[in-house]
Amino acid sequence: MLSPGSRCAPITLAFSRNPEIHTRTISDERAAAFVALGMAQQLEKPVVLVCTSGSAAYNYAPAVAEAYFQQIPLIVLTADRPPEWIDQWDGQTIRQNEIYGKHVKGFFQFPDEFGHPDKVWHANRLSNEAINLANQFPAGPVHINIPLREPFYPETGENFEFTRDVRCIDHFQPNGQIAQESKQKLESFLIHFKKILIVAGQQRPDPKIQEAIDEIAVKGLAVVVTDTISNMQSSVSINLHDHYIGNPLINEDLEPDLIISFGKSIISKNLKLFLRKSKAVHWYIQPEGYSPDTFQSLTKVISCQPLSFLNFFKEKGKSDMVFVKKWMALENKLKDNLDAILNDAAFGEYKATAVCLKHIPSQSKLHLANSMAVRYVNFLGQRKQEIICNRGTSGIDGSNSTAVGCAFTTKDPVTIITGDMAFFYDRNAFWHNYPMNNLRIILLNNHAGGIFRLIDGPAKQPELEEYFETRQRLSAGYLAKDFGFDYHLANDERSLEMGLKDFYDKSIRPKILEIETNSLQNAETLKWVKEKVKTCVLDS
Amino acid sequence: MLSPGSRCAPITLAFSRNPEIHTRTISDERAAAFVALGMAQQLEKPVVLVCTSGSAAYNYAPAVAEAYFQQIPLIVLTADRPPEWIDQWDGQTIRQNEIYGKHVKGFFQFPDEFGHPDKVWHANRLSNEAINLANQFPAGPVHINIPLREPFYPETGENFEFTRDVRCIDHFQPNGQIAQESKQKLESFLIHFKKILIVAGQQRPDPKIQEAIDEIAVKGLAVVVTDTISNMQSSVSINLHDHYIGNPLINEDLEPDLIISFGKSIISKNLKLFLRKSKAVHWYIQPEGYSPDTFQSLTKVISCQPLSFLNFFKEKGKSDMVFVKKWMALENKLKDNLDAILNDAAFGEYKATAVCLKHIPSQSKLHLANSMAVRYVNFLGQRKQEIICNRGTSGIDGSNSTAVGCAFTTKDPVTIITGDMAFFYDRNAFWHNYPMNNLRIILLNNHAGGIFRLIDGPAKQPELEEYFETRQRLSAGYLAKDFGFDYHLANDERSLEMGLKDFYDKSIRPKILEIETNSLQNAETLKWVKEKVKTCVLDS
Repeated sequence: MLSPGSRCAPITLAFSRNPEIHTRTISDERAAAFVALGMAQQLEKPVVLVCTSGSAAYNYAPAVAEAYFQQIPLIVLTADRPPEWIDQWDGQTIRQNEIYGKHVKGFFQFPDEFGHPDKVWHANRLSNEAINLANQFPAGPVHINIPLREPFYPETGENFEFTRDVRCIDHFQPNGQIAQESKQKLESFLIHFKKILIVAGQQRPDPKIQEAIDEIAVKGLAVVVTDTISNMQSSVSINLHDHYIGNPLINEDLEPDLIISFGKSIISKNLKLFLRKSKAVHWYIQPEGYSPDTFQSLTKVISCQPLSFLNFFKEKGKSDMVFVKKWMALENKLKDNLDAILNDAAFGEYKATAVCLKHIPSQSKLHLANSMAVRYVNFLGQRKQEIICNRGTSGIDGSNSTAVGCAFTTKDPVTIITGDMAFFYDRNAFWHNYPMNNLRIILLNNHAGGIFRLIDGPAKQPELEEYFETRQRLSAGYLAKDFGFDYHLANDERSLEMGLKDFYDKSIRPKILEIETNSLQNAETLKWVKEKVKTCVLDS
Repeated sequence: MLSPGSRCAPITLAFSRNPEIHTRTISDERAAAFVALGMAQQLEKPVVLVCTSGSAAYNYAPAVAEAYFQQIPLIVLTADRPPEWIDQWDGQTIRQNEIYGKHVKGFFQFPDEFGHPDKVWHANRLSNEAINLANQFPAGPVHINIPLREPFYPETGENFEFTRDVRCIDHFQPNGQIAQESKQKLESFLIHFKKILIVAGQQRPDPKIQEAIDEIAVKGLAVVVTDTISNMQSSVSINLHDHYIGNPLINEDLEPDLIISFGKSIISKNLKLFLRKSKAVHWYIQPEGYSPDTFQSLTKVISCQPLSFLNFFKEKGKSDMVFVKKWMALENKLKDNLDAILNDAAFGEYKATAVCLKHIPSQSKLHLANSMAVRYVNFLGQRKQEIICNRGTSGIDGSNSTAVGCAFTTKDPVTIITGDMAFFYDRNAFWHNYPMNNLRIILLNNHAGGIFRLIDGPAKQPELEEYFETRQRLSAGYLAKDFGFDYHLANDERSLEMGLKDFYDKSIRPKILEIETNSLQNAETLKWVKEKVKTCVLDS
């Protein structure tokens, strides 16, 4: 993924002239880096970013941080002046060494000339190290800063030669199986626990893990709780917990004595608070790396592939059936009634999201923007699509771009459900010349950061509208014209159904379905649904 | 300058409820930070930025780097989770400590609670330190990271009390007069130099310095060379050097034996290369701080106010009149002919810029975007307006926003001349609810990064269009509709004159004058003007 510049011209030409490398150019580096992230996430291998010297590198930073915490491999190449010209007030020169601080797995300074043969070895070795480091679990971004002297451009007719004779250092990673010794120890601990909760954090879909946790759930060996971003939801897992887990009238019976988790972050703040208050201990499973103490009760870190642990657990884990049934009863009760509740709700972004979800093809990718879009979808339970959301840093700054990157990697439809703040913030996602005909945008436009009206604190402040919601007037109509997208505006159920009718028909242009709703009404509806859900679950 | 968020709510409310503080809210933090920079630059005092935790802070980074190198004071307040919650996979949490690395003058970690009275002292002291550091020459950005625990919002009806009884540590700065001892030494050196070039770098207008260098120029004590961003151009200074300084046929006679410079960077690469090749030594004047060796010949750093040195120089400096006259002859020859040359030129962005400049009110501010806009204006000589350009990092990432910030500080017209890449890159500059009726945008749209066709190297590469120019289709018409701006499109001299006729009439809406030109024609014209200029100056 290239962004234009002069200092980086030698790198740009080296990549674009190499027939085995597929390159694209995007001008806004902030968008370019999130597009690269969206690609790398799907490809599960590093995407290379190339930018020129100066503040360009800093525009990559939001995506670099997201990649770091979402464990997505990126190789960031930044062109730089040679060291002697730093801080001499030459144009486009900043201090690029270690510019991403603690948000890259490694920083590498490329040699600035190749007079000594060891410099060639150094360049080869550090490139190998960077690539291996980016790939190694947990994957993440690495940064190579490349000082370049003029001339930047080859002579007319000068040919580049690409050799296959480059030394590669292949890294064979450990198999991540749980050790026999660990198994014996864990077995002796496991027998003490009867209320076991397995919590799946953010990850890509994985049929083998899915099979394992479904079997665990079906056999009642544990309660399996899955967020929408876990991509592990099934008909036997707990998916709707965010609706009822904060309720003090029912919490006690749901309290586990052991939490086993794997994957990255979870969305539900209610679940996090509930588990932090519980007396359970927490075991965390991952192949390698730092283990966060998300629930303030971490006692065992088990370094292995989650699948290896789950297969062991299938044999040795056992929960109390009363505990399991309590969870399942609540879940099923709500599952049976949620559709009807939403059916009765007033039109607004909550209901519109539910309606839209019914139309999205199963075989497709679904990007959810922070902050309300991902919450609504999480409320609405199990999905067939792969769910993608930038929960590494939970920013709104690159949602569109990440979806665009995803669209570059697949022929399946890629849908993004987004609010207006995230959508317009990252509108430069679309500012390039590459086709995105499989992209579908569902824009929930309440003309404000509506989330601030939906959470308790700010809604009560007199500053709500100016300083939190920050009302904004934009609609996507002109943006659609600027970028040549199909566009449909909906503001009630009928116009929404109209818009959805042929929304997923094949098209040569991306499509925007803008759903205009009222921020006050949305807040009302959220409250109304909460009330209905409460009655429903307490009635069990 | 606030950007919305929940973690930062206590800071947002503290600022917005204080009747003595004027606050604004802008949602895209990248734009918000450049707007703050544009304000601080004009106000010559720090503007405070407030954002929430997570990647928001990184979106400030391009402007923070620009502020650092352009020496503009900013106080960046980032809300953060308390230290114990970093890296625990809670939402919107990154590693904010020292996130701006070497691009702030100081980093301060705010206390996370105030249980011990020393913590209150600490908070007061570090706030004082940060403000003083931001102001102290060379001014620049500082970063205070503020960990905050819930609750973020006051109870309904809870009052904030603001006391004037806050200890302030006032910093009285040195007077910056040149020391008597230094004067004696410098005098003994000065007598050895006869070809003295005074080069003014980027700075704000300063009538006293202007008077001093004009007197020096009039008396022929030195040749005074001024870039457009120096804001020091006058009828007696050298302003058009970028046209002729690269010419080997005339360079020899222009070579100085002493370069005296003050201020920040200069634009002309030709001038820099010429001075680096010359045998002159370089004296650099600034009150304090690090001194770059821009011309590779720095021998004396003189720590004082430039005015103090210039007043000394007026008495003791003396140049050879042949040297001075050679420069003035070239300059005057070109000054007499440049208008006529441009008059004969084909219509395009060069000529359009010249025409526009004639219409811009004297009493106004003129922002120039990187990369071609500032070069064209520099070619065109002396201006009456204050010239502003982000030459700290020379990025295109915040030109619009900087101009918007400037427009917030004055009732005079604020014009930005920009290319299409810079303009659309930073379109979120306009995404807020504050009036900018004094803003005028002159958009030179060649539908590409046209500069790459204008410089030698890339123009010859087959990759020119896709990887360097990156052709883009956008025009500003829909953007104008989105933001409610007046809009006029010009594509020849007649329509340009039409557009300019009432462009500076008072208006309640900002105005865009979009000038559509052809990238190929622009390259032709630049070459053609160069040729004409060469004939003109060699003919003297």
